Amino acid sequence: MIKTPVNGMRDILPAEMRLRSYVLSLIRDTYRAFGFTEMETPAVESIENLTGKQGGENEKLIFKIMKRGEKLNLAAAKTENDLADSGLRYDLTMPLSRYFANHEAELIKPFKALQIGPVWRAERPQKGRFRQFYQCDIDILGESTNLAEIELISATATVLTRLGFQAVEIRINDRRLLKTMAAYSGVAEDLYDEVFIALDKLDKIGEAGVSKELMELGMSEENVRKYLDLFKVTAGSAGEDALSAIGEKLGDLLDPKVIRNLSEIFTVVNASKDQNFTLKFDPTLVRGMGYYTGPIFEISVPEFQSSVGGGGRYDEMVGKFIGKNTPACGFSIGFERIVSILSDDGFVIPGEEEKIAILLEKGLSAEKKTEAFQLASALRKEGKTALVVQMAKNKRFQKEQLEAAGYTAFREVYERPFV
Amino acid sequence: MIKTPVNGMRDILPAEMRLRSYVLSLIRDTYRAFGFTEMETPAVESIENLTGKQGGENEKLIFKIMKRGEKLNLAAAKTENDLADSGLRYDLTMPLSRYFANHEAELIKPFKALQIGPVWRAERPQKGRFRQFYQCDIDILGESTNLAEIELISATATVLTRLGFQAVEIRINDRRLLKTMAAYSGVAEDLYDEVFIALDKLDKIGEAGVSKELMELGMSEENVRKYLDLFKVTAGSAGEDALSAIGEKLGDLLDPKVIRNLSEIFTVVNASKDQNFTLKFDPTLVRGMGYYTGPIFEISVPEFQSSVGGGGRYDEMVGKFIGKNTPACGFSIGFERIVSILSDDGFVIPGEEEKIAILLEKGLSAEKKTEAFQLASALRKEGKTALVVQMAKNKRFQKEQLEAAGYTAFREVYERPFV
Repeated sequence: MIKTPVNGMRDILPAEMRLRSYVLSLIRDTYRAFGFTEMETPAVESIENLTGKQGGENEKLIFKIMKRGEKLNLAAAKTENDLADSGLRYDLTMPLSRYFANHEAELIKPFKALQIGPVWRAERPQKGRFRQFYQCDIDILGESTNLAEIELISATATVLTRLGFQAVEIRINDRRLLKTMAAYSGVAEDLYDEVFIALDKLDKIGEAGVSKELMELGMSEENVRKYLDLFKVTAGSAGEDALSAIGEKLGDLLDPKVIRNLSEIFTVVNASKDQNFTLKFDPTLVRGMGYYTGPIFEISVPEFQSSVGGGGRYDEMVGKFIGKNTPACGFSIGFERIVSILSDDGFVIPGEEEKIAILLEKGLSAEKKTEAFQLASALRKEGKTALVVQMAKNKRFQKEQLEAAGYTAFREVYERPFV
Repeated sequence: MIKTPVNGMRDILPAEMRLRSYVLSLIRDTYRAFGFTEMETPAVESIENLTGKQGGENEKLIFKIMKRGEKLNLAAAKTENDLADSGLRYDLTMPLSRYFANHEAELIKPFKALQIGPVWRAERPQKGRFRQFYQCDIDILGESTNLAEIELISATATVLTRLGFQAVEIRINDRRLLKTMAAYSGVAEDLYDEVFIALDKLDKIGEAGVSKELMELGMSEENVRKYLDLFKVTAGSAGEDALSAIGEKLGDLLDPKVIRNLSEIFTVVNASKDQNFTLKFDPTLVRGMGYYTGPIFEISVPEFQSSVGGGGRYDEMVGKFIGKNTPACGFSIGFERIVSILSDDGFVIPGEEEKIAILLEKGLSAEKKTEAFQLASALRKEGKTALVVQMAKNKRFQKEQLEAAGYTAFREVYERPFV
């Protein structure tokens, strides 16, 4: 028998589990107060859905499950896919789309979904990244207006603020604006994705680096200049002023609804927020996934250099299952990352119940055991945690261990009271 | 793209999810108050552990995961097992034993574990049984005395009572007693398992039926009579009297510790319980799994004909991983069964927060939208759930749907107030 978890996966020890459990409760309570309803899909999805081109690069990382019984024909199998009929989900978005298509008649529209659960990706194992990890997504399906974006942003900022992050920042952009800015600068449409990948590195490699990459993609020096200058129109502002400035510059090329929509999100979010977070317009925000169709956003905290969540509008994905387009918008928070930041920062779970350990001398009579359990019951009635254990030979070490696990008081039960 | 879940698995709709979430919270809170700590293992375990003979019949039902990349050699593969390196866990007990072996130095002894999570079995799909289902186990590792049994029984009875079950009953027996009763009646040791399978049917096929099956197994008529009469020694009692009676009857054949231990569990549980449940001695209780070594128990409620949970002491399993025997005792509740009983009985989740839906006229100005979101924030501050949605064309139908989802009050926001 093998003691260790399978390669790339991990066991979760009690101390981390307490923190995860606290964070999950807070996420659930907060999103629930915003009217999101929790739902769940199986861990396993059919192989056709997993390899249906909705998952991009993630489809290369699927854990495939073998057919069973007579359906598994080893002799006749020519390729891997002849042997597998299903696999572990690589994200929660594809299963959500399938779920919505399958249960459309039973769901309230718009459907405000909260999904929390593990996903699996057979990535090369590396420090801090595991092959099973939790995702935590909220999505609004069936809402075409910015009510969706406003709710997703407010709710997610509230979660992070309530977790104790003091300076939550949400950056917002729109895929349509991103594309129009590229068109304005003479970028051919089939180059958009590669240009955006280069733009996305602005933080890391600076303007000179991006400029070099863009020229390597075949853009003229003049167009590169025009493109990068465009981002300076907003310099000094990251709010509605910047939006107006860029809208004016792009003129008729850009559907005026795009700017109006983003402006309204700014106005309403800022005027109705009751938490201290910042919403910023960031025209360089890209988001990798090609399926986004409108506003996109990322959330970050100064405690961590890269983002701790992101999302956007994807109005065309659910249609792949349901046969008719369904507006959709989602926000995913990086649960594992948040737990790891909190844990590294020595986060103290607020309001944990009082924990008392009752240590029993070995070989107690039934009468004395009863006394101990009655005491435990009484403590639990007062809302406390009461642990009943045998007293160890090394009582001091035992108490130290229990203190490390959060026990703050001890009672000892002996057969004969000391005189 | 395929809309339905894979064969034998299912999506969970919001209404059931709310109930599951409530039951899970209550289970967590209750067990936590008894000093159990939650832990988690990955869904995937190595194929060696899954086929290591700890899982009995369940090992035939494993969802196997294919090797990936160069390790998958289709041409050279002769059997199914050449293609798989891992699989989905079929229970939580084997992974717990592995976990304990892997982290022994980091865990407090005794280790009181609470594990909640899905397991997978490729059973033939049938009504009410699914290929992915949740298990909910508590186990105490490293406690050799009946402190373990007392805690497991009290904690689990408390969970079910707090869920509103009025007449929880726990039946208890001991594998050693079961074996001695068979020995007393002349049953050969290699027949024990088959004899117990027959005995387990007493409820269903009656004494005549069991008698017939025992004779078919080769027991003499006299021995069958002797065996079945033995169970009548306890007639009319299911408490400590019955235990003494059967102990006396078996005399020197039975280690006197067995009866003393069960008696003490009775005394302490009954004297310290603060919930209204019944503990009964049931010498016909068998429990299928061969790995039990001492006391075994099952829990039932009158609302359901068969048991809703069970467990027992298994002192020899952890040793398979760790190389030295480790006392262990566990109790598993049938989470899916309990949810389905509560759901069929129209269980009302107590103390759900007040839910208010704010309906917005289409095309509201940013100013009016802001008003709506400010109202929502204010309601959430009071601990209420506030949902912000567009008003549907069919407002009456929309409100009916929202009422069905628990919304009890509505606010409507229009651009111009009615005069």
